[in-house]
Amino acid sequence: MNSDAASHPDRKLEIGVFECEIHLKFRLIEENCIFNDREKLLELLIDAFIAGADEYLEPIHSCIKTQEISELEASPEMRRQLMRLRNSSNLT
Amino acid sequence: MNSDAASHPDRKLEIGVFECEIHLKFRLIEENCIFNDREKLLELLIDAFIAGADEYLEPIHSCIKTQEISELEASPEMRRQLMRLRNSSNLT
Repeated sequence: MNSDAASHPDRKLEIGVFECEIHLKFRLIEENCIFNDREKLLELLIDAFIAGADEYLEPIHSCIKTQEISELEASPEMRRQLMRLRNSSNLT
Repeated sequence: MNSDAASHPDRKLEIGVFECEIHLKFRLIEENCIFNDREKLLELLIDAFIAGADEYLEPIHSCIKTQEISELEASPEMRRQLMRLRNSSNLT
């Protein structure tokens, strides 16, 4: 499988379902009031984090874990999408 | 302090240093090869997550913790920035 993918990298997509975990910890200068809106908070904090370290933000820790899992663990929508992607990569 | 901030919301910035923790867990359809570039992986996974759930991504868990901390725990750059912000909000 791998050698085949290497010789035809654009024809054989090695796609799969991955379980991903991200853990971020950082210090941030902010106004108190932003923490009241819990719905928008995640987006706001992620935006701040990806904007990078500056005088407003100091990263403390970031960690990523990824693991390929059985596609049977994925939702029906994802399994269908996976089949579509594999079929279309076989046709080209 | 709070009642003062409420009566002059644009004059008195209630700013502080917060320690923020974000924990995200999700399933993702991806090509194997993206996991080789560990440097870009965090950015790529965060981008995928904030794009939202679709047939490529299924959120499993997301958790945010925020806590105001003593500014003495922040970096010198952040402490200076905090002083600048407080001074400028006093001047206006």
